[in-house]
Amino acid sequence: MYRDKTCGELRLSDAGKPVTLAGWVQRTRKMGGMTFVDVRDRYGITQVVFNNDTDAALCERANKLGREFVVQVKGTVAERTSKNPHLPTGDIEIIAESFKVLNRSEVPPFTIEDNTDGGDDLRMKYRYLDLRRPGVRSNLELRHRMAFEIRRYLDAHDFLEIETPILVKSTPEGARDFVVPSRMNPGEFYALPQSPQLFKQLLMVSGFDRYFQIAKCFRDEDLRADRQPEFTQIDCEMSFVEQEDVIRMFEGLVKHIFKYVKNIDFTDPFPRMTWNDAMRLYGSDKPDIRFGMKFVELTDLVKGHGFSVMDDAELTVGIAVPGCAGYTRKQTDELTEFVKRPQIGAKGLVWVKIAEDGTIKSSVGKFFSDDDLRAWAERMDAKPGDMLLLLSGPAMKTRKQLCELRLEMGNRLGLRPKNVFAPLWVIDFPLFEWDEETQRYYAMHHPFTSPNPEDVPLLHTDTGKVRATAYDIVVNGTELGGGSIRIHDSELQDTMFELLGFTPEKAHEQFGFLMDAFKYGAPPHGGLALGFDRFVSMLAELDSIRDTIAFPKNNSGRDVMNESPSPLDPAQLEELNLEVLPLKK
Amino acid sequence: MYRDKTCGELRLSDAGKPVTLAGWVQRTRKMGGMTFVDVRDRYGITQVVFNNDTDAALCERANKLGREFVVQVKGTVAERTSKNPHLPTGDIEIIAESFKVLNRSEVPPFTIEDNTDGGDDLRMKYRYLDLRRPGVRSNLELRHRMAFEIRRYLDAHDFLEIETPILVKSTPEGARDFVVPSRMNPGEFYALPQSPQLFKQLLMVSGFDRYFQIAKCFRDEDLRADRQPEFTQIDCEMSFVEQEDVIRMFEGLVKHIFKYVKNIDFTDPFPRMTWNDAMRLYGSDKPDIRFGMKFVELTDLVKGHGFSVMDDAELTVGIAVPGCAGYTRKQTDELTEFVKRPQIGAKGLVWVKIAEDGTIKSSVGKFFSDDDLRAWAERMDAKPGDMLLLLSGPAMKTRKQLCELRLEMGNRLGLRPKNVFAPLWVIDFPLFEWDEETQRYYAMHHPFTSPNPEDVPLLHTDTGKVRATAYDIVVNGTELGGGSIRIHDSELQDTMFELLGFTPEKAHEQFGFLMDAFKYGAPPHGGLALGFDRFVSMLAELDSIRDTIAFPKNNSGRDVMNESPSPLDPAQLEELNLEVLPLKK
Repeated sequence: MYRDKTCGELRLSDAGKPVTLAGWVQRTRKMGGMTFVDVRDRYGITQVVFNNDTDAALCERANKLGREFVVQVKGTVAERTSKNPHLPTGDIEIIAESFKVLNRSEVPPFTIEDNTDGGDDLRMKYRYLDLRRPGVRSNLELRHRMAFEIRRYLDAHDFLEIETPILVKSTPEGARDFVVPSRMNPGEFYALPQSPQLFKQLLMVSGFDRYFQIAKCFRDEDLRADRQPEFTQIDCEMSFVEQEDVIRMFEGLVKHIFKYVKNIDFTDPFPRMTWNDAMRLYGSDKPDIRFGMKFVELTDLVKGHGFSVMDDAELTVGIAVPGCAGYTRKQTDELTEFVKRPQIGAKGLVWVKIAEDGTIKSSVGKFFSDDDLRAWAERMDAKPGDMLLLLSGPAMKTRKQLCELRLEMGNRLGLRPKNVFAPLWVIDFPLFEWDEETQRYYAMHHPFTSPNPEDVPLLHTDTGKVRATAYDIVVNGTELGGGSIRIHDSELQDTMFELLGFTPEKAHEQFGFLMDAFKYGAPPHGGLALGFDRFVSMLAELDSIRDTIAFPKNNSGRDVMNESPSPLDPAQLEELNLEVLPLKK
Repeated sequence: MYRDKTCGELRLSDAGKPVTLAGWVQRTRKMGGMTFVDVRDRYGITQVVFNNDTDAALCERANKLGREFVVQVKGTVAERTSKNPHLPTGDIEIIAESFKVLNRSEVPPFTIEDNTDGGDDLRMKYRYLDLRRPGVRSNLELRHRMAFEIRRYLDAHDFLEIETPILVKSTPEGARDFVVPSRMNPGEFYALPQSPQLFKQLLMVSGFDRYFQIAKCFRDEDLRADRQPEFTQIDCEMSFVEQEDVIRMFEGLVKHIFKYVKNIDFTDPFPRMTWNDAMRLYGSDKPDIRFGMKFVELTDLVKGHGFSVMDDAELTVGIAVPGCAGYTRKQTDELTEFVKRPQIGAKGLVWVKIAEDGTIKSSVGKFFSDDDLRAWAERMDAKPGDMLLLLSGPAMKTRKQLCELRLEMGNRLGLRPKNVFAPLWVIDFPLFEWDEETQRYYAMHHPFTSPNPEDVPLLHTDTGKVRATAYDIVVNGTELGGGSIRIHDSELQDTMFELLGFTPEKAHEQFGFLMDAFKYGAPPHGGLALGFDRFVSMLAELDSIRDTIAFPKNNSGRDVMNESPSPLDPAQLEELNLEVLPLKK
């Protein structure tokens, strides 16, 4: 070893001990006849002192140390005269007796500090230097800790971690697969898995009873701001269970992580909400319940007053925003602009301000009397000082618009602090989603999701009303994961395929081996998958998943550090029996 | 839950309790007025009894249960009259009160028992049924346990598990890459990693200090009997370490696994052997030291007796095989045939039998007197009753041939029991390997391996003699893993590239980002990787890694269960800007 102590562990009680440290030069300062060098490693920073009076030659060499030089320092631990209460090692320093430069460093292209001067692109190109910054490093430490605790919990609950293949069969349904040409089977391709769904169901058929895997998954999608072509999923499946069993098990997992990683104790069961209520009260299947402002429907109250926007609307729905009666015209105009942005697409916004003294102002005073507006306020349980915000239009669309406005108001009022966590189960999802464009039903989750047993009689008669035995876990308005009880009965599975417009041939081609497997005694089973990158970013209180990943890709799917993807050697292409076509303009 | 107990947990102390079990019908037997049904799940087998006298209708239904039906049984635990000492649940049975068929099963294509009637191909096609067999299941349980204990040890030693990318840059050196066309970057490809080598070295540059990952790796190689296109590696790297530190850390890991998984305590340090000694004494860089029969060189003793085979040979080397003086002519002929097989390629075999009474017989009695042969025996420390086996020829080739013969004799004498484990570190590997065909040096490990500091002066003058700071861990004649101290000095790295015939341009093209990274303060570092599939197969006492993998590929890289790889949709190819060329005949 090049060291006998790390840069994070020395304390006052070590004073007088001889030590050897190794690490990177964080910075050097000359003060009077002394040179102070901060040496950094993963574990911390320790101050090393060189005294010009004691050893001028050594001090002179220390003065030449550059940022990020790698050094090995021998010396004695001493109490500091001016202690640094912000550092765990701040009570001590090392009186240097000798040191060795283990490696030099060019001047790094940006400062290795949380508050760095490097832009995004530069830091991605020099990701190995960006990873030296304490904030980025601590995200990966958190990720490790979380993965470890997830495994500890699941192992204690009899789950087996089983690796499923990365080279799998391509299935044209769903998102786009990444594919891998097979040299040994020319003209044929593997796919990279979008999830281990089929394999985990096979493992249940095999009797593994409780399976999990922290699994790499792949989707060749156009990357939105916060997507990565490869991502990591906590993938789980259990046999002989019903929805309640799965929910309890994974509520336990989430609580375990919060407790052992964040020291947050959730003693009560997580609240649950049906999908219908979530849509009705929050306009979203992933409501942020850190704050109130639940939706209140006013359609019946607002009609018949000659305001055609409301008269013609399927739904008028609003929120009471606490304490915002004092909003200026400029501020309400901003909100109107906000909901009219193309991403949200509302036609306009109605506001009602209920001043502390009870006086009422509104954008629709022309059509409604103060008493009318008071009736709205009463139904919405608004207090003096509140502002009502209302939207009108087609029901589902309007709810989604109001959802955005509610979140915006939550942000403005500081009601969405990152260090407060509000988990929620959303249950009773619809089994099917109607697609207007193709005029057919799609599976809201996937074709193996079991219908709610109570709703099986509706499958053919009232397809859209059938509830799935599916559940999502939502934290702070973000879907952390979800799952379902699967169909284990092959006849019911055939019905599902039929309702989803699969011909028996197509169903067999794509899922034949699973359907075959189900003929040999498939147990009742169900499971869940959590987005691990998302889970880490949530606990790291980050906006993006990118900094939870050691070597992420950019929005074009490129790793700008190692310049991949890249063109292949012609010989390699030939071996694969492939030709790259000239680019179409 | 469909059950309140598993099929493996009920004991005599549970007698009288009402229980609900769920599982698969292992078998049914009718005896007198009783029907016995063995119900199986992952945890065990429990016997369920139906009494025709008590409930004829129920018993009648039970008689119709087929193998592998999935059932839920309610009943009462009772003491068995005839107990089964081979089953943990063998003291009890369940007196059935009711049961429900949760799912039916077609008759499986082979019996779900360790001693199955299914052939290899059939079991691969129905892998989900093969996985129900207790032996296969227990391999995956062992794999889970090992992965968990590996993580527990490494976490306790401050290692962070960090996921490195699966979509990486293709490097034409080394084995063949699997490649992944990028739709978003037409004409460009990712590769799947052969190992996380470059990334783990970057993580050391980033200051992560101790990294590990149980990582999927990929090699597009023609598959020999026991290779898989995707395999799993325990990949580790440490900073500020020397060879001794790495060896100690991972010797600790291997001991931890043996202790907590196999209950085998290795108290002494693992023996170490230089590569030179391993080749000289065992003819292999991975000696099986479960047994003796070390090589003894006799070149000087055998020359000048008119036996041209030995006179002309660079090396004559032999082993003394204990207690085999009684081998018949037929048996020694078999051994001669064995070494003459093309895979081994010896020209012939010399044997000397030293009977218990001291009389000597030999295949070369014509050329050597009894005294000559006694001198051989003496040097070889042979006892009365032993047989000497000698080979002659070019030194390295002959050693490798004798290595095969030694292992064969070990097998014949039962000296290689699978439940005995003999770990060994092989150290001081040569840094370079000379290739006759291309007349140049290759890196024996990889181009980042550090030379032994003592041998750096020889780099240009006596290249072939330079020892690497590289080490392998070998167990029972199998390489479990290996690693090295890496070069962290860019000048030394440049020298290595030059000696390996890389032009500076080529080196930059392939490893540019690593070389760039090394300019910014790379710490001294080193590491090791263990083959996880191999490690599991060793502890499972299997010959092949295949049954340590849930869904393995066959020797053509195919998954015969889901028929992958498979042709792509033309639309998918078009999106990827690729064309599959017609097959050349």
